[in-house]
Amino acid sequence: MTSATFNWKQVEKAELNQTFDLNTALNHLKFNDDGLVPAIAQQFDSGEVVMMAWMNLDSIKETLKNQRVCYWSRSRQAYWRKGESSGQVQHLKEMRIDCDGDTILLLVDQIGPACHTGRRSCFYAVADQDKLRVDTQPLITPEELYGK
Amino acid sequence: MTSATFNWKQVEKAELNQTFDLNTALNHLKFNDDGLVPAIAQQFDSGEVVMMAWMNLDSIKETLKNQRVCYWSRSRQAYWRKGESSGQVQHLKEMRIDCDGDTILLLVDQIGPACHTGRRSCFYAVADQDKLRVDTQPLITPEELYGK
Repeated sequence: MTSATFNWKQVEKAELNQTFDLNTALNHLKFNDDGLVPAIAQQFDSGEVVMMAWMNLDSIKETLKNQRVCYWSRSRQAYWRKGESSGQVQHLKEMRIDCDGDTILLLVDQIGPACHTGRRSCFYAVADQDKLRVDTQPLITPEELYGK
Repeated sequence: MTSATFNWKQVEKAELNQTFDLNTALNHLKFNDDGLVPAIAQQFDSGEVVMMAWMNLDSIKETLKNQRVCYWSRSRQAYWRKGESSGQVQHLKEMRIDCDGDTILLLVDQIGPACHTGRRSCFYAVADQDKLRVDTQPLITPEELYGK
């Protein structure tokens, strides 16, 4: 299948275990105006959603190549090899792409906390009636996490 | 706590079970230029991530009020009350907000398939070596799903 003919409707209609060239599919991801797609990181065994961040085409390819998750940091405008400064790396177990090619799901083995606050997950605040309630405590302090 | 003083750093440093006014927090969500934040939908009991879509402030409030998930459809530029045309509604079990207030995690009870293709999850294509492989079949056809 050549790049010219690929579209996500073909993937929708695929038979079970039908395959498409991965590079071609990646080239057809629907990146936003900044060249990014959202990527959800989920702990592969527990199912916990630990964070969401953004990837560009090169960070996706690097993640697949090295099996360690690399995002694009919008705040720093730089590659963000998860765990590079904190040691809390995400080993890639599986990468999935959604039906219309604009979102990525990463099944990962997250070492330690995923969140910069030292919590396991970034989703530690729950909408509870008319309150937002923090229901998870840090495993370690940010100071310990970043060795400051 | 008044709106003027709220920021997400305060939430980071909160004690366990500390609360903040929910409306104030929602007013401080970091919406993108289109007034949207990404919302991840996860089946509350199995942990399966079934889809990702977008919400604006009003769809978030409606979702909390009615406990049925309402997105903002970027393609249709309209509210998208999940299941309105397909019957495959998402009952809200819990809404969570991430550490920097720019992503929402919805724990839902998804009735039937979440995906417009008739599959349970939108993430049915896996990056498998140099191939993209479809590893899930539809539960029902899109034609059955939308009664066409």
